Amino acid sequence: MSERAFGESPVVITEEGSVGLVETKYFTFAGGQDLFRLENGRALGPVTVAYETYGALNENADNAIFIEHALTASAHAAGRHSPEDKAPGWWDVMIGPGKAFDTEKYFVVCSNILGGCYGTTGPSSVNPAAGKPYGLDFPMITIKDMVRVQKALSDSLGIRRIKAVAGGSMGGMQAVEWALSYPDKVDSIVLVASGAVSNPQSIAIHKVGIRAIMDDPDWNGGDYYNGRPPARGLALARMIGHITYLSHNWLWEKFGRRHPDPESMKRRLDSNFDIEDYLEYQGARFVERFDANSYIYIMRAIDIYDAAEGYGGLAASFSRLKCKKALVASFTSDWLFPPYQSREMVDAIRENNIPCDYHEIDSPYGHDSFLLEYRTLTESIKEFLGSF
Amino acid sequence: MSERAFGESPVVITEEGSVGLVETKYFTFAGGQDLFRLENGRALGPVTVAYETYGALNENADNAIFIEHALTASAHAAGRHSPEDKAPGWWDVMIGPGKAFDTEKYFVVCSNILGGCYGTTGPSSVNPAAGKPYGLDFPMITIKDMVRVQKALSDSLGIRRIKAVAGGSMGGMQAVEWALSYPDKVDSIVLVASGAVSNPQSIAIHKVGIRAIMDDPDWNGGDYYNGRPPARGLALARMIGHITYLSHNWLWEKFGRRHPDPESMKRRLDSNFDIEDYLEYQGARFVERFDANSYIYIMRAIDIYDAAEGYGGLAASFSRLKCKKALVASFTSDWLFPPYQSREMVDAIRENNIPCDYHEIDSPYGHDSFLLEYRTLTESIKEFLGSF
Repeated sequence: MSERAFGESPVVITEEGSVGLVETKYFTFAGGQDLFRLENGRALGPVTVAYETYGALNENADNAIFIEHALTASAHAAGRHSPEDKAPGWWDVMIGPGKAFDTEKYFVVCSNILGGCYGTTGPSSVNPAAGKPYGLDFPMITIKDMVRVQKALSDSLGIRRIKAVAGGSMGGMQAVEWALSYPDKVDSIVLVASGAVSNPQSIAIHKVGIRAIMDDPDWNGGDYYNGRPPARGLALARMIGHITYLSHNWLWEKFGRRHPDPESMKRRLDSNFDIEDYLEYQGARFVERFDANSYIYIMRAIDIYDAAEGYGGLAASFSRLKCKKALVASFTSDWLFPPYQSREMVDAIRENNIPCDYHEIDSPYGHDSFLLEYRTLTESIKEFLGSF
Repeated sequence: MSERAFGESPVVITEEGSVGLVETKYFTFAGGQDLFRLENGRALGPVTVAYETYGALNENADNAIFIEHALTASAHAAGRHSPEDKAPGWWDVMIGPGKAFDTEKYFVVCSNILGGCYGTTGPSSVNPAAGKPYGLDFPMITIKDMVRVQKALSDSLGIRRIKAVAGGSMGGMQAVEWALSYPDKVDSIVLVASGAVSNPQSIAIHKVGIRAIMDDPDWNGGDYYNGRPPARGLALARMIGHITYLSHNWLWEKFGRRHPDPESMKRRLDSNFDIEDYLEYQGARFVERFDANSYIYIMRAIDIYDAAEGYGGLAASFSRLKCKKALVASFTSDWLFPPYQSREMVDAIRENNIPCDYHEIDSPYGHDSFLLEYRTLTESIKEFLGSF
């Protein structure tokens, strides 16, 4: 069953403005002095970071744009790895010549987050001390830790200043943390469908996802790399997550109560509505590409992030910001990071006298709008980046 | 950990207006000619129905009120089974002398639904043909089947006319179906936090709950009555459900991002926010009292219910209604059965020239409002029942 069967995606991929063929590169920070000291005090090393770059760094080394990915994406944000690739990178509609993040002007960098499973060190990486994957021996990581790895990558690439750090969802949290941790490096932030914290409903949804994985006997306390991965638990966690990416009204629009065989509904327990088949499909597709432990660690990093931590409130915390400008965008139908969470950040940014564009975009697609409303975002971001 | 630890419930239980000590009674419809023919054509029998009654049937046998319960409740709607009972029946605040459903005026009947696990025949009942619990040999049941069992109970109690059929959530669906299936019996319906169908988001949420149960190895294809029940899967399903009973804002109010040991958050993967402990607690409590197969069958009955089935639309279907009046109530923060689903029913009732009171109650508690906003409901229902 293809995604297409469930209705057209509003995203139209064309080769126009493509960055073309790209490759994922890897940078490894060796142990010893380069060892990462995590927020919780634990040391981690060596750390490898997978990243891609599009466009070129200018002479002043100040035209970099860091793209921060959300929960399950990778460094592969734009272009294709081979001409045969079925789909381009995850934010290809936004990155390329003439696009929102214009690779003719900017040096665009996207790296896989710490704790991920797309080339950057994470729970599925080999723990050198044990000679086998970390599993649950991987230390707890935070949004700040993810950003610190990116800062090291930025330095290794010779970047002096960053024009913008931009991200949607958890990517927005990383962008905020970049500007808070390295105020002298970041000219601007672009926060899409994001928040300064996870709200308790989001924590609750992650909770049941984590529980679904851990309850799968194949999870085996996180030590499954030599056996069967916890495919059913991970699929279920993803299905739960998917419900939160789509809005109530969009579910009516996209699936309604459609059923391939309504006659069977009252006879068979396994007779599925289209929405159910869709969730099963999304779950099954996800387990082919993602590591269950990474999913747990990253959800947890989102849960515990608090941009106001250690400060009396968000405005007080944001007094650290030295960026020139900010752009914040939210979507009316997003119930994972509802617009009020974006408005809280806008208020705290403006209270610190930093100019902040705010777009509350009327969109039916729920949280997924941040990937789907690329036309509206493109317009706003182009104007924003061109203004300073 | 007690529920109290998570904040006061807005419900205050007093002995004032209590129906006192009550007992659950049982009525068994024997096999043979009394065998139930279900909507899907399958026969089921014998069928036992567990029920309680409060107040007395009048001489005209026309003062009965049927109370329809939601997903996981029982026939025990009011009073206590023994003086030592910690809590009274599930809608005690609404049923008793001088209360919304005034037992000095009305003969109040509440029965456990077909497919349930509180005394009415369900998947955990013994299948006489096999000499062991039905498990998945239990036939698929529908809201209409539940109502047909209640109609038989009503007849056996000598009830001539029903003053009102009232219910919240799935109880509202049963109330609607009562009035559609037996238009000559029902004087009025009271539909609280309900809908004429399950919306696709609700189907999706049930889907992941059902999947959680079925993925638990202890579920064993539904055949677990001689072994361990699928406690982890059922707890997870309940945790997922619970998220949908509470509103986004109420989660902030009740739990926020409170954590019993914030210092541990970045160090330990098993360090839980209060909202997580609460969900775990609800899950654990639920498995002590509910049968996993019943949960599956009942969720499915909700999913497939469509009050407009076989008609061009809801107004056309509701042309069957002959009740004198209807009362519909919804709650602003309910996202499981959002107010628009109540308004659809109100419109369809009014289109058929049946007077319909509608109350869209501003409440922070989400879907659970139907149990918590009893003061507001009491006022509306008293006025309603006194008006005809």
